[in-house]
Amino acid sequence: MKLQVPGFRFAGGHAGLKRGGAFDLGLIACEGPDGAPARVAATFTASRAAAAPVIVSRERAAGGLCRGLVVNSGNANACTGPKGMADAKAMTAAAARVIGASGEEGLVASTGVIGAPLPVDRIRRALPGLADGLGADRFTDLARAILTTDTAEKIAAAEARIGGRRVRVVGAAKGAGMIMPDMTLAARPGRGRHATMLAFLCTDARASLQALRRATRGAVDATFNAITVDGDTSTNDSVFVLASGHASGPEIHGGAEAAALERLLRRIMGELAQAIVADGEGATCVVEVRVEGAASVAEADRVARRVANSPLVKTAIHGRDPNWGRIVAAAATAGVPVDPDRMDLSIGKVALYRRGRWRGADAEKAAHAVMREPAYPIRLHLHRGEAARSVWTCDLSAEYVRINADYRS
Amino acid sequence: MKLQVPGFRFAGGHAGLKRGGAFDLGLIACEGPDGAPARVAATFTASRAAAAPVIVSRERAAGGLCRGLVVNSGNANACTGPKGMADAKAMTAAAARVIGASGEEGLVASTGVIGAPLPVDRIRRALPGLADGLGADRFTDLARAILTTDTAEKIAAAEARIGGRRVRVVGAAKGAGMIMPDMTLAARPGRGRHATMLAFLCTDARASLQALRRATRGAVDATFNAITVDGDTSTNDSVFVLASGHASGPEIHGGAEAAALERLLRRIMGELAQAIVADGEGATCVVEVRVEGAASVAEADRVARRVANSPLVKTAIHGRDPNWGRIVAAAATAGVPVDPDRMDLSIGKVALYRRGRWRGADAEKAAHAVMREPAYPIRLHLHRGEAARSVWTCDLSAEYVRINADYRS
Repeated sequence: MKLQVPGFRFAGGHAGLKRGGAFDLGLIACEGPDGAPARVAATFTASRAAAAPVIVSRERAAGGLCRGLVVNSGNANACTGPKGMADAKAMTAAAARVIGASGEEGLVASTGVIGAPLPVDRIRRALPGLADGLGADRFTDLARAILTTDTAEKIAAAEARIGGRRVRVVGAAKGAGMIMPDMTLAARPGRGRHATMLAFLCTDARASLQALRRATRGAVDATFNAITVDGDTSTNDSVFVLASGHASGPEIHGGAEAAALERLLRRIMGELAQAIVADGEGATCVVEVRVEGAASVAEADRVARRVANSPLVKTAIHGRDPNWGRIVAAAATAGVPVDPDRMDLSIGKVALYRRGRWRGADAEKAAHAVMREPAYPIRLHLHRGEAARSVWTCDLSAEYVRINADYRS
Repeated sequence: MKLQVPGFRFAGGHAGLKRGGAFDLGLIACEGPDGAPARVAATFTASRAAAAPVIVSRERAAGGLCRGLVVNSGNANACTGPKGMADAKAMTAAAARVIGASGEEGLVASTGVIGAPLPVDRIRRALPGLADGLGADRFTDLARAILTTDTAEKIAAAEARIGGRRVRVVGAAKGAGMIMPDMTLAARPGRGRHATMLAFLCTDARASLQALRRATRGAVDATFNAITVDGDTSTNDSVFVLASGHASGPEIHGGAEAAALERLLRRIMGELAQAIVADGEGATCVVEVRVEGAASVAEADRVARRVANSPLVKTAIHGRDPNWGRIVAAAATAGVPVDPDRMDLSIGKVALYRRGRWRGADAEKAAHAVMREPAYPIRLHLHRGEAARSVWTCDLSAEYVRINADYRS
């Protein structure tokens, strides 16, 4: 599939934030039909230490319009105080200038080390070169420029017919560690729970701002907000959905068309979110922790997240050890009044524990075989109600420790 | 110091739950003056999947009296349903029988693998031999019998003058993984948050049950309930304080004497709790995460616990990397409305971050030197109020992964 969407041009390059000439700066220029700005819906980390670029973009995205976005890797511009805020604004202004927009029409995102001052002069010097290289066929360069500990670009693309018209989406994401996104819409800044992950989706859909925001929120909740690598939440998590409006036909504002748009976004975000977990630092497999029979979705989420983040469960997953006792123990401390004597637990299709009873050594042997697969589900049924929720996680390996004990040295 | 306390006899031996003849069964026999039972105050895990021995001992400890305690390692008797309950009671009854007590006067504790049926017949067969070996000078055998992945016995002893009379305490604990105790008094079964750790304190104090319980609760909250190895909470955590009453003088029931008793218990429990963290699976250092300037102790606890359990903070500690950005990021997602621009952070005596500002590369170099010590504090000041709380944690190493990815294979 071609990684092009009408209304968008992309660029990636090296500004000197990373060593050895690696790409560390990306640029998106977008516009609607007849030179109008594009529309944007965005979600951001609910961390109390939201980075300067998050604060700036959250405010801009509240207006719903944009003409460009600049993103750097190698430095998070987080915990950088007033200087960080000034740097984020200067970076955005410089990007807006090179694409011929006003400063207020630009969005910004950063990822990398927390706390170090952003070398904004290097970014300023690199931007004119990036602007010269902007091209509709340069999406892969953008995807490359946002990587940190990722091992490869994460890209997805799809199209769908909505209201009889073809709508395209391309998406790029980054993220491998400090991953447990908990993002809220720009329009509704948040309460606060949990990663750096960044994602940029570009579509030519013509949608009302309200429909675009609703579709974005629904898709993010079911995908990026349902993954964890280490349970650590970033200061910089951001998802941007940019819509140029170049697709023909009437504007999407609700009903079956809005639902179709949400499905399309969800499909792309789902692929990208899964790619983040699969590329989780030191990860060798992806596990869906599915909790069913909960009294509410929030309760199912709490239990699933507790299991998905337990170091003992994650090391057992790494060792291909069907240690269901650790799973039940984790579920029992999620702050939900579960009853272990009424719980069912299976790995893949193998029932290991039913209503308080161990199913024996043969079941464990069968589960061990399932756990050698690169991806499989762990299912817990609580027998408390009808609600369900899945959270995707990976194993905890010695490699994760190596990566993170050496990060800056 | 002699590991003997008037009114107590101990034994440890091999029942066949562990391989290779390792000690896996311990026995305590206790009695007050004139053949009265001893008093007991105990705290137990708040896990919703509390193990069968916890359920049995919680009920027994509510009565406040006992004549003996049996403990095994190698099998947790957790998630074992009705059979587990029957096994725990049979184990207690057998222990009571060999020490000449009634079944209701015995307490029980277990630690080891979750989910496997308890080989209670092996325990029954081994108990008469243990009873024959009971001795006032056998405390070390008991301490040895409770170990699982621990690398050594954890023992502490102290004495103090309370009300002009000498009071003695000896204590033994086990615990290295699945450690984040959250225990409540037997008399007040709990809400539920967070480890297997077991501790047994034996004192000759003559104290009212109420004074003994209050001192136990205070001491546990400041010590065992303030440590974490991996943030995973066990089904079996239990602390027992047995008081024979053999110390002379009037009964301790309040005032300065009760406070002195609490200080004495706290000293022993503090030593044992620190020993658990220091022996944490794969640990190479002990770090006190101290949060000051919080609006409440609960708030300070929440922030300290979030930092102390963050895999990114714990791997940075392992790498001796003064990565304060990860610490601030963790604190900012604890569900407390902290303001990173008003936060101070230091490692040892080195200030790394003050009111939203990085203190530079030289400070990081100095902090790196502090982090080469086997124990040091990380201090966070929130500037929100006057409350403070410390939580003790260890680093996360590749060795932790190795231990837990191989546990049962």
